[in-house]
Amino acid sequence: MKQFISVHDVPDLDAWVQDALALKRDMHAFPELGRNKTLGLVFLNPSLRTRMSTQQAGMNLGMQVQVINAGGDAWAWEFAEGAVMDGTTVEHVRDAANVLSQYCDIIGIRCFPGLKNRDDDSLERVLNAVMRHAKVPVISLESATRHPLQSFADLITTRENWPHARRPVVALTWAPHIKPLPHAVANSFAEWMIAAGMDLRIANPPGYDLDPRFTAGATIHHDQAAALDGADFVYIKNWSSFADYGAMPPVHEDWMLHADTLAKYPETRFMHCLPVRRNVEASDAILDSPHALIYQQAANRTVAAQTVLKKILED
Amino acid sequence: MKQFISVHDVPDLDAWVQDALALKRDMHAFPELGRNKTLGLVFLNPSLRTRMSTQQAGMNLGMQVQVINAGGDAWAWEFAEGAVMDGTTVEHVRDAANVLSQYCDIIGIRCFPGLKNRDDDSLERVLNAVMRHAKVPVISLESATRHPLQSFADLITTRENWPHARRPVVALTWAPHIKPLPHAVANSFAEWMIAAGMDLRIANPPGYDLDPRFTAGATIHHDQAAALDGADFVYIKNWSSFADYGAMPPVHEDWMLHADTLAKYPETRFMHCLPVRRNVEASDAILDSPHALIYQQAANRTVAAQTVLKKILED
Amino acid sequence: MKQFISVHDVPDLDAWVQDALALKRDMHAFPELGRNKTLGLVFLNPSLRTRMSTQQAGMNLGMQVQVINAGGDAWAWEFAEGAVMDGTTVEHVRDAANVLSQYCDIIGIRCFPGLKNRDDDSLERVLNAVMRHAKVPVISLESATRHPLQSFADLITTRENWPHARRPVVALTWAPHIKPLPHAVANSFAEWMIAAGMDLRIANPPGYDLDPRFTAGATIHHDQAAALDGADFVYIKNWSSFADYGAMPPVHEDWMLHADTLAKYPETRFMHCLPVRRNVEASDAILDSPHALIYQQAANRTVAAQTVLKKILED
Repeated sequence: MKQFISVHDVPDLDAWVQDALALKRDMHAFPELGRNKTLGLVFLNPSLRTRMSTQQAGMNLGMQVQVINAGGDAWAWEFAEGAVMDGTTVEHVRDAANVLSQYCDIIGIRCFPGLKNRDDDSLERVLNAVMRHAKVPVISLESATRHPLQSFADLITTRENWPHARRPVVALTWAPHIKPLPHAVANSFAEWMIAAGMDLRIANPPGYDLDPRFTAGATIHHDQAAALDGADFVYIKNWSSFADYGAMPPVHEDWMLHADTLAKYPETRFMHCLPVRRNVEASDAILDSPHALIYQQAANRTVAAQTVLKKILED
Repeated sequence: MKQFISVHDVPDLDAWVQDALALKRDMHAFPELGRNKTLGLVFLNPSLRTRMSTQQAGMNLGMQVQVINAGGDAWAWEFAEGAVMDGTTVEHVRDAANVLSQYCDIIGIRCFPGLKNRDDDSLERVLNAVMRHAKVPVISLESATRHPLQSFADLITTRENWPHARRPVVALTWAPHIKPLPHAVANSFAEWMIAAGMDLRIANPPGYDLDPRFTAGATIHHDQAAALDGADFVYIKNWSSFADYGAMPPVHEDWMLHADTLAKYPETRFMHCLPVRRNVEASDAILDSPHALIYQQAANRTVAAQTVLKKILED
Repeated sequence: MKQFISVHDVPDLDAWVQDALALKRDMHAFPELGRNKTLGLVFLNPSLRTRMSTQQAGMNLGMQVQVINAGGDAWAWEFAEGAVMDGTTVEHVRDAANVLSQYCDIIGIRCFPGLKNRDDDSLERVLNAVMRHAKVPVISLESATRHPLQSFADLITTRENWPHARRPVVALTWAPHIKPLPHAVANSFAEWMIAAGMDLRIANPPGYDLDPRFTAGATIHHDQAAALDGADFVYIKNWSSFADYGAMPPVHEDWMLHADTLAKYPETRFMHCLPVRRNVEASDAILDSPHALIYQQAANRTVAAQTVLKKILED
């Protein structure tokens, strides 16, 4: 297994979820699997959950873990092939990826989108450059368009909370925010839920439709109430416009989730990847209710990362 | 044992010091105690001694240690319950503490006071919020009003340097500095020395009396020489005003400790928690003399931290 | 062995290279050698290769590794003995080095030159202050005038690529850059190659001669082509002026290495310590050719660091 950057890298999604749930019963069962192997985690952007959970996953498997914080100024990478590097970039990604491959057996990389140039982001310029030049497996710690470790953890969480035979109805709803956010969590969640055979509805205001490459197979609603009605799981997330790339077109209705939603759908479970802007995206009443799965999702980040690392190490 | 934030969390101070001294004889005697346990150290402020000694303490016990540097800008926490988070704070402490509890078996946190609002600092708003929401034991790596790991190391150091039967006379003296400093080290030192049954004198200029909550049981002097006379240990430390909170009222006498103090009291031992402004707080002659215990204090930071972690892990 | 700061700390260079090559055959052969020992790596400047390779070397030997990023502002050190510290420096190097010695069994430190004051840099004011006050062995992770771990890795790399009996001809050539760089890599490379008995030529434009303390025994050329002619290895590196200290006197000829150099000397191997400004210092054609050893050099950084740590631990 050479990469983990999207659901397409998972040969059998249901088997992986079962493997993850089995691993969760004893996270310390394989302390020798990563012995004498190095996991290098490179963060081009801040991180709390991904940093801690992936580091813990590596250590649980006995790996040596190294974390590199690459500030934009301190370690500016050049991505253009053939560039004359007489500007502000200090090291070419070709060299950085080759050097990381000398020290690491697996490379994890976090690289957010710029949200300025849709093509640059959609083509995953940074992640693909690292993968092109790396000589060892690469896992995404969130890239411009996807956050697969989050989505894998989310899928594990839905399975843990769904004992029924019928496939659940899942609603991904846009929520308000104060600044433009990437699409990665939403894209990735859609991709994984569809691949897992969920009945997925996506609700967002007009102008906020996600890139259809990720949502084909879901039904798109511009009416939040209609999408939530009958949903077994509601995933709350903000994202900026994809059509008017990175912008925040005005929204005239109240898309924040309040306690009355909770009252109306007492069986529904609520999810969020965190961090969440409380009482902007959703009210405390939702987030602190027993129907919120947010901390279980966070805990499953380690399970997801450790399952992926284990697959790569066993390969 | 659910927390270590002050001397009040220590059920038997003398027994703890004895345990610490026993541990110091072989710091590597318990490499399995923390196996498969994670220690998360969260620094909201810079640190050298606390960072290194607590990390080492955890590793000596076989723990996985993760260090998180939370810059104010990168990871601004919201502390107000019910806040509408439409401003600069990105994650509520409720969520941060719950998430940290998913990955860590013990959380350490450093959170300095703002020195602007006396009530905010005195109420330990940050530390208490973390403790209220954490699901695992929390240890203080220095909070707004106390630095218990430093004080425990200081107590261990006095015991190592006091072979006599009578209880020692300890003087805590204010020293000059160029900017306003927190009260945590001084408060905490007072609290621990009093709890340990020392005969404690505190000397500071008028206007610099510490919060009496921490100093009850000590005698307060505004005359440095009177306080130092006959002291077995002299602890040197600057702090800002508590009455005129965070201010630096003018001081008209010379409170810096010079070589002549050393000459005058040849049996006295000198202590400082470091970092020290040399030749501002105390002269090189004091700090470099064989009577200075400053590096032994630093070494005992690991002993103190490891004793605390061991107690929690054994609980 | 008390220090590793230059080639003069290596008692038998050939034996060390042989030991390094033996170690490289099984980097995980000594997992117990550093058990219960702490390696503290202090970075006063950014680092990728040195950080990752030295950390990996320590972990391979079973050491506990702690990395400290000391930002100039966050942790400003005072170097002047007897200084009245009423300015911007927070901790005296005397205290910092003594404290590090309480927690670490080996200290590594990176301290770049200021390139402002030639005497300050030439006297290795920072490194020497740390060494003077440290109580444990100190290794240089690059100092003002030398980068010995890089040079040791470079020497290992040349040995791996030189099966012949005669001693190789090595050319160190200055290359263009957009800003003034330190002399450490070039000085150190010269020192090690000369000590290893290589036939060393150094080529640089007029005004760019290195400090003769490091280059005695090499021939100095101001004509790049003459120096490269017949060279078995060509080491490419920029440095600023030593005579007009830290300046960049104008260079009127093209010193960048192009594909035609490769074509002209098909047996020559090309080296660079990285990061490299591609198509400024050397063209992609050189750096990506099978004759470039740049990634092998990077890999050998771990071998060099681990050999040094092993020697110190065995001492």
